[in-house]
Amino acid sequence: MHDTPAPTGRFISFEGIDGSGKSTQARLLAEDFAAQGIDAILTREPGGSDGAEEIRRLLVEGEPNRWSAETELLLFTAARRDHLERRILPALTAGRMVICDRFADSTRVYQGATRGDLRAKVDLLHDTMIGREPDLTLIIDMDPKRALSRGLARASGEDRFEDFGAEFQETLRNGFVELARSDPARCAVISGEGTPAEVAQAVRRSVAERLAL
Amino acid sequence: MHDTPAPTGRFISFEGIDGSGKSTQARLLAEDFAAQGIDAILTREPGGSDGAEEIRRLLVEGEPNRWSAETELLLFTAARRDHLERRILPALTAGRMVICDRFADSTRVYQGATRGDLRAKVDLLHDTMIGREPDLTLIIDMDPKRALSRGLARASGEDRFEDFGAEFQETLRNGFVELARSDPARCAVISGEGTPAEVAQAVRRSVAERLAL
Repeated sequence: MHDTPAPTGRFISFEGIDGSGKSTQARLLAEDFAAQGIDAILTREPGGSDGAEEIRRLLVEGEPNRWSAETELLLFTAARRDHLERRILPALTAGRMVICDRFADSTRVYQGATRGDLRAKVDLLHDTMIGREPDLTLIIDMDPKRALSRGLARASGEDRFEDFGAEFQETLRNGFVELARSDPARCAVISGEGTPAEVAQAVRRSVAERLAL
Repeated sequence: MHDTPAPTGRFISFEGIDGSGKSTQARLLAEDFAAQGIDAILTREPGGSDGAEEIRRLLVEGEPNRWSAETELLLFTAARRDHLERRILPALTAGRMVICDRFADSTRVYQGATRGDLRAKVDLLHDTMIGREPDLTLIIDMDPKRALSRGLARASGEDRFEDFGAEFQETLRNGFVELARSDPARCAVISGEGTPAEVAQAVRRSVAERLAL
């Protein structure tokens, strides 16, 4: 005989190219949950826990070719593991919602666009060392030219994640859309072309449908 | 028809518990090579390249339980990958000898002693992301009680690698000896009980026999 498992929170990730508005949408969903009295945390990758934020600094500071794709993949996975076990899982276990700006899909799509030959290693590291997917992944989809102009407009100094041209962004966009197609039970594609409020309404609709929230 | 491959250097690692004298022996072998006019580099783990030294700081500084065993394993592997591709492999390709104070065996044995259940992950990460063994591994073997007194006598502030008792050191010693038994073609066990000069002579004898140097 088993005990009834304690109710746990749900894990929602936002994905998309730079400038797509996914960080804004993550924040708006967190505010919406707060307004509804739903307990939620808002976090982001790379980073999101004390240790992962230190690893993030190794990843985003310094010269662009400071790390090989393989070393970078190991560092991303280390940061994700720390974030997952120190912040995400404890919150879910406590019954809280977790809203995360980027998760493993970003690694899959970015590595796929830059070093597609590493995909088997990406998957193997994820399966072995992370082994957890979000309950719902919202992919904010947008024309790369429009997203790029937004992204560049708020360049943060962490240039490695933003210093890419329109063609590369197009490859990333296709990668996210393809990923959604390959895992429709988990992923929803939301157009990011409207106003933030319009996109937020589509996000809320998707969360309501998919997670019954 | 193949080109004759360029001659490459040989990769020698030193392993053993803290205080066994392995770092001294690595240095003495490097000096011996220099005296013989053999081009060699002396390096160490964790660290050994600019990037790996930064990851080392994350590993050795801060609170003891700062990282889970899984995150630590990912960080060690990231540091090793950087060290291997930025320092070890270029030296070997240039025909230089590489003498390394600790390599993957330290991870195997330390994780085996602390979190034996992770061994399959240790091996999988090594096979997937490192995929290289030393040509010769010299395990400097010593009574843990004697090694421990030496190790504590030179405590460096990086206490995480030295702040262990005699029983734990005994487990590590057994781990290294067992590892040598499982891979006798690569590993040689050398008694560390004599004077440094005596041990160095045994090291030179082993290098001469195993690598024809």
